[in-house]
Amino acid sequence: MTQVHDTATETATEAPTSAVDAANTTSAETSPETPAINVEWLGEYLLGKWAKARKESRALMANPDLHQVAGLSMADHRERVLNQMSILVDNDAIQRAFPTALGGHDDHGGNIAAFEEVVLADPSLQIKSGVQWGLFGAAVLHLGTKEHHDKWLPDIMNLTTPGAFAMTEIGHGSDVASIATTATYDPDTDEFVINTPFRAAWKDYLGNAALHGKAATVFAQLITNDVNHGVHAFYVPLRDDNGFLPGLSGEDDGLKGGLNGIDNGRLHFDHVRVPRINLLNRYGNVDENGEYTSDIDSPGRRFFTMLGTLVQGRVSLDGAAVLASKLALTIAIKYGSERRQFTASSNTNEEVILDYQRHQRRLLPRLAQTYAMSFAHEEFLDKFDGVFSGRTDTDADRQDLETIAAALKPLSTWAALDTLQEAREACGGAGFMAENRLTQMRADLDVYATFEGDNNVLLQLVAKRLLTDYSRKFAGADAGALAQYVADQVSEAAVNRTGLRRFAQNVVDFGSTARSIGYVRDTDSQRQLLTDRVETMVADVAGKLRAATKLPQAEAAALFNSHQNQLIMTAYAHAELLQWEAFTRALEKIEDKDTAKVMTWLRDLFGFSLIEKNLAWYLMHGRISTNRAQAITDYIDDRLLPRLRPQALDLVAAFGLTDELVRAPIASGAEAVRQNEARDYFADRRASGEEPVHEKDLKQKKRR
Amino acid sequence: MTQVHDTATETATEAPTSAVDAANTTSAETSPETPAINVEWLGEYLLGKWAKARKESRALMANPDLHQVAGLSMADHRERVLNQMSILVDNDAIQRAFPTALGGHDDHGGNIAAFEEVVLADPSLQIKSGVQWGLFGAAVLHLGTKEHHDKWLPDIMNLTTPGAFAMTEIGHGSDVASIATTATYDPDTDEFVINTPFRAAWKDYLGNAALHGKAATVFAQLITNDVNHGVHAFYVPLRDDNGFLPGLSGEDDGLKGGLNGIDNGRLHFDHVRVPRINLLNRYGNVDENGEYTSDIDSPGRRFFTMLGTLVQGRVSLDGAAVLASKLALTIAIKYGSERRQFTASSNTNEEVILDYQRHQRRLLPRLAQTYAMSFAHEEFLDKFDGVFSGRTDTDADRQDLETIAAALKPLSTWAALDTLQEAREACGGAGFMAENRLTQMRADLDVYATFEGDNNVLLQLVAKRLLTDYSRKFAGADAGALAQYVADQVSEAAVNRTGLRRFAQNVVDFGSTARSIGYVRDTDSQRQLLTDRVETMVADVAGKLRAATKLPQAEAAALFNSHQNQLIMTAYAHAELLQWEAFTRALEKIEDKDTAKVMTWLRDLFGFSLIEKNLAWYLMHGRISTNRAQAITDYIDDRLLPRLRPQALDLVAAFGLTDELVRAPIASGAEAVRQNEARDYFADRRASGEEPVHEKDLKQKKRR
Repeated sequence: MTQVHDTATETATEAPTSAVDAANTTSAETSPETPAINVEWLGEYLLGKWAKARKESRALMANPDLHQVAGLSMADHRERVLNQMSILVDNDAIQRAFPTALGGHDDHGGNIAAFEEVVLADPSLQIKSGVQWGLFGAAVLHLGTKEHHDKWLPDIMNLTTPGAFAMTEIGHGSDVASIATTATYDPDTDEFVINTPFRAAWKDYLGNAALHGKAATVFAQLITNDVNHGVHAFYVPLRDDNGFLPGLSGEDDGLKGGLNGIDNGRLHFDHVRVPRINLLNRYGNVDENGEYTSDIDSPGRRFFTMLGTLVQGRVSLDGAAVLASKLALTIAIKYGSERRQFTASSNTNEEVILDYQRHQRRLLPRLAQTYAMSFAHEEFLDKFDGVFSGRTDTDADRQDLETIAAALKPLSTWAALDTLQEAREACGGAGFMAENRLTQMRADLDVYATFEGDNNVLLQLVAKRLLTDYSRKFAGADAGALAQYVADQVSEAAVNRTGLRRFAQNVVDFGSTARSIGYVRDTDSQRQLLTDRVETMVADVAGKLRAATKLPQAEAAALFNSHQNQLIMTAYAHAELLQWEAFTRALEKIEDKDTAKVMTWLRDLFGFSLIEKNLAWYLMHGRISTNRAQAITDYIDDRLLPRLRPQALDLVAAFGLTDELVRAPIASGAEAVRQNEARDYFADRRASGEEPVHEKDLKQKKRR
Repeated sequence: MTQVHDTATETATEAPTSAVDAANTTSAETSPETPAINVEWLGEYLLGKWAKARKESRALMANPDLHQVAGLSMADHRERVLNQMSILVDNDAIQRAFPTALGGHDDHGGNIAAFEEVVLADPSLQIKSGVQWGLFGAAVLHLGTKEHHDKWLPDIMNLTTPGAFAMTEIGHGSDVASIATTATYDPDTDEFVINTPFRAAWKDYLGNAALHGKAATVFAQLITNDVNHGVHAFYVPLRDDNGFLPGLSGEDDGLKGGLNGIDNGRLHFDHVRVPRINLLNRYGNVDENGEYTSDIDSPGRRFFTMLGTLVQGRVSLDGAAVLASKLALTIAIKYGSERRQFTASSNTNEEVILDYQRHQRRLLPRLAQTYAMSFAHEEFLDKFDGVFSGRTDTDADRQDLETIAAALKPLSTWAALDTLQEAREACGGAGFMAENRLTQMRADLDVYATFEGDNNVLLQLVAKRLLTDYSRKFAGADAGALAQYVADQVSEAAVNRTGLRRFAQNVVDFGSTARSIGYVRDTDSQRQLLTDRVETMVADVAGKLRAATKLPQAEAAALFNSHQNQLIMTAYAHAELLQWEAFTRALEKIEDKDTAKVMTWLRDLFGFSLIEKNLAWYLMHGRISTNRAQAITDYIDDRLLPRLRPQALDLVAAFGLTDELVRAPIASGAEAVRQNEARDYFADRRASGEEPVHEKDLKQKKRR
């Protein structure tokens, strides 16, 4: 034990290299005082740029009429959520992103911020709203033109026309470019003929398709004059009051693993005719002679541009995942601060379970990760708003936005599932009770990992971008070829091919110094370790794949496939770096000293956890010595966890989730009341001598 | 890439050191033939010693009346499961463990084997049956005496008396010794008075308590003549046809995260009187004068002996978790072998998703783990049967059984959740549909991680045992003191304190040679690496904790708490070794060469995955060089996954889960039918010239 302590002390007494790091050295071992964070300020800070929209949305989400009711039948849950959407309309909660001319606010960031908070009421309401206004409505808004807006958006906004977003086909989940539904122009009638050629081309998993959808934006291969111009969107009426219109048919997807307030279903089209005008023609038009025109010459770029307008789905899933993690940790940390386990009859002090190291190990690194995700999301949302408001809307911005979305959404949606599960288990049997919300929230968020882009596919898009950038910089002409093979693997999904404006500015700043690691606790050192890993992994896999350019196609594909896992791990490391960078940037604006100190510990816990998780890599690549490696784990266990333990309640309090938003009896204080009653009972009995002696104690007495 | 290949080839051409290892060197690179495993034989082998009971149970579980119906209301689901239990009774499916004299078979292993398979029908049915016959009935059987058996068991067996197992209290989940319910003997009336002193002492989460239970085995502190003799079990009638009997009351736990076919509830007792005879008195008796006697003098040992009779819960959860993992992999691997993604219009060969390396990385190591879990479970079940049949029933056997249970149940129940989730995501949106069963199975098994002993608590029991053994061997007198502190942390839970008869015989066989690793692929080398890690971790943490014996109690407790995570990680490593050992022993009995070869690859994948996961440890402790470390990952990616890919369908076929047991449409072949229809459609269109030319291709042509 002595040796372990020495290592940590050594580290702790190294000279700090920045103001933020100075916080580290003035802590526990020298000063026994516990810093007190400014919870109110931190809470406001976490709400971010769109605090107002978030607060308005939270105030609305406190309304019991919007809350999920456990145990509803699927039919009742669907009906309830449809009604809740009307409540959103009546409360002016859905119009932020729509044009001012139509009663909206042209406020894209605020719209997403408010929309994310809906997850706290019921994820089904969030996603069904997302289908209606964020996908169906947004497709009309972003892919259509003024005539379409005026004609259809008002009824979409006020829910007169509930609609489906008919993109995904059974046969093609994440591969939109290969969908098989066709829209063939018929000049004789000036109509498009929408058709489903076979079973695998049925549109599937569409919210609003099973019951409520009266129209849909249908994605299909646009064919005119015997040329296929690729995927375009069409506005297609689905139902009138008597049900499906002629040529249309479908099925109910039925019960799902979660989100059962949404009526997902399948659709198929038997030569369904719509007027030519129903082509959402912002990026491609067909005239009455069947002549196709587009402002974007390249079919590939046109496709990506169209899909790019739909990135907000990924933005809002990322934000919702962050909120779900905050909810889970609020519940588990409140409960862990009250729950006493093993209150034996002995005289030892009764600890609450959050005092156990293992419990801290389970919850506090996830708390640090959630803060990192929250700050990363705020930057992501700002980037999104910049592009969609036109404030910073270059091609490069749009490409970066796509890459950030493809990096952050997988990590946060996986992290939410992991955190919800750990919180559930940390609350024991109580965590399994539906009333405490953890299990249902996890069930609902499960599918976030595979919709709006399967997480594994999205990470390959990130890897592709990293390779492209690397190749441009170091290998010139190979760039396109290199990227092409990744593209073939993940198909033509929604990311662009051109260079990355670095979200993380520091990726190439170190090079030769990367091998001489300073103090792991130092901000620059953490950055260097994390950045160097990403850089080295990119260079490593790029080197292995370079041979692909000289190989026949099949062999090249095989070579890429044999490094697919490495590519995804590389993208994952990059995404973690983005989160760490965002957390670190967020520290810079914290002025209150105690708050800065605690938040720096928390950032360190996040950084150290990342390094600890990937320790084998650092050791194998000589970036961290064996001694340093052990010191990292010791520092987490001996310093960071004990320092952060007393801050845990404040750190979740800053999430600002009121009782109306949390709604979990185990996080209500009831546990502490029960525990105190039991403690007082035994204290009284002992004092009064009523408590019977234990056989065990009698025997011990005899032996003496 | 060349370098990577060289490393692997080098490894592969090293001389084999055993017959089993010889299988490795005659493979892929020299012989392009794919070995064909004997699926039928392997299937029988996996069914194990109680194949007959398993087959009978599977035949019964194919009955649709026993299947879970998705989307039932909680009330209907509870009613359905109660009725299903009668079907089990009518089909002689529940009596195996009960005495021959009462119509049973005294067949403990067969009983558990058959009972585990019930999870395939509906986990609610498994657990509610477990409550009735494996907990409530087993308490009467194992804690009661002949008079109790004759009086109560027949009605328990035939379900005339549905019952609850009232042990857990709200205030004490895993800490049974500290429950607060009392049973005080009243000599005036020759009765015990069962009483709940405060809210935290309510019995909670009890199956059969909310609705159906007519009686319960209630665990309470037995008090007579003002002495508390510790926890004993009492048979207490709960309800007649009019509801709760006087003094009894309770609440319904309501909706849960899963297992909603079970009516869990809470109970409390207001001075409820039961005849003295209702004390289940096998291990402790009270006579009419209130005199307490027991064959077991030590109250602690008596308590553990009583709880030890209930180990079958952990046995059957372990087995059920193995089966759920088999189900998940059967579904995901069948689907992954049919599903084509990105079937672009290009001419490249269309791969199924299981051909992607990442997909293999996600599923095949979990397949290897499931085989390891399956073989480990079979040994566990045999050990259980040995003890409960009296065949090998020494104190040491019972202690080992407890330790094995505490080691294997956490790993398998966590692995099942992980595998079900990965399988769900690997099936994309289809995996989220309730009809494909993965989400509901995961929801139902969620609580397996925290009931019948919280996984983290169980692993601490294992750690305690490892420390005790280590101390006995190396430190003599310190043993008791060392273990005591772990005991205080996890309380007096159900494990004994005496020495471990090693399940893994080889733990101490290496010592000085552990640092010179041979070939990682070699069986002995894998064993050495895995064993050495466990040994070293035990010695390491024991060394750090030794100081505890000289510290005041509070400081000693703090020292232990500061190594709690390390203790649990040590126990985890030990449990993984148990699984690896079981898999390796299982290889010895495989005679068919091809089957042996493939199964050895699979065992290697399991062993390599364990080493890869803990690579940082091996590097930090100098057990594996950097080059060797890289070779391990390369060998998994370049050799084991490609070799096992073509075996995947056979390896899940050997699980023997028929369509009636799987019941997932995506694993039915429907996907292949759809895919083929789509492929044929496009082939026809291209052949007939009907397929329109793509704008992209037109543009490329122009450019040339």
